[in-house]
Amino acid sequence: MNRKFGTLIKKANNSVTRNADKFAQTLGLTSVQISIIDYIAHNEDKDVFQRDIEKEFNIRRATATSSLKLMEDRNLITRTPVKKDARLKQLKLTPKANNLSKQIDDYFNETEKIIIEAIGPENKLTVSNGLSKIINQLSD
Amino acid sequence: MNRKFGTLIKKANNSVTRNADKFAQTLGLTSVQISIIDYIAHNEDKDVFQRDIEKEFNIRRATATSSLKLMEDRNLITRTPVKKDARLKQLKLTPKANNLSKQIDDYFNETEKIIIEAIGPENKLTVSNGLSKIINQLSD
Repeated sequence: MNRKFGTLIKKANNSVTRNADKFAQTLGLTSVQISIIDYIAHNEDKDVFQRDIEKEFNIRRATATSSLKLMEDRNLITRTPVKKDARLKQLKLTPKANNLSKQIDDYFNETEKIIIEAIGPENKLTVSNGLSKIINQLSD
Repeated sequence: MNRKFGTLIKKANNSVTRNADKFAQTLGLTSVQISIIDYIAHNEDKDVFQRDIEKEFNIRRATATSSLKLMEDRNLITRTPVKKDARLKQLKLTPKANNLSKQIDDYFNETEKIIIEAIGPENKLTVSNGLSKIINQLSD
């Protein structure tokens, strides 16, 4: 039996992440950091909390906590406790991260175009639905 | 612009890896270790070296070195220098890893079936070709 999907998905993820890391390095950041900056920038109209980051990126709480703390230390985000529940911390971009967000947005838009071009626009839905179904099937 | 592919690929990879880790834990191993055991078991007829692992899993040399050293320490593989070039080390499964390889093979076969069922068998080629094209496009 030729088993390709697990390996293909891992390789594709490595390629996407390395490509993002290469760009992020030009800003002195990592792929995780530019992804989180981009997510917060795109959701400025609503409050963003750590749990939203966990959900969006499908990462564990401990992973999210350490990434966000590091970003706070590096003056990329602020984490402000919410009045009604101090355990909840609202995430906001600092002016420093805000200044980088346009370049980051451009990078992700450009990469999305490159990916769709590679897949072939006519296969876009089949591939994205396929990936969504894998995620649903293998997640708890 | 709705950008989904980078995130979808990352989430799919997280799901596949966590699913593999959950199974691997039942054997006291990690997803990386069961993947490497499975690869060596399936390539017993030819010599397997570290560079084959790097290529198969699209991982950096340093990552492969540390994973393989740990597996040697845990008595899962042997790394034997090749006579004509001592820098080249041939990788072989230990009896301990060999005893686990059937269960690992069954796990990966079963997961592949679950993934294909989730995608829909009629979409299998479109999705796998799509992923291959993304890998080729974004890799150096």
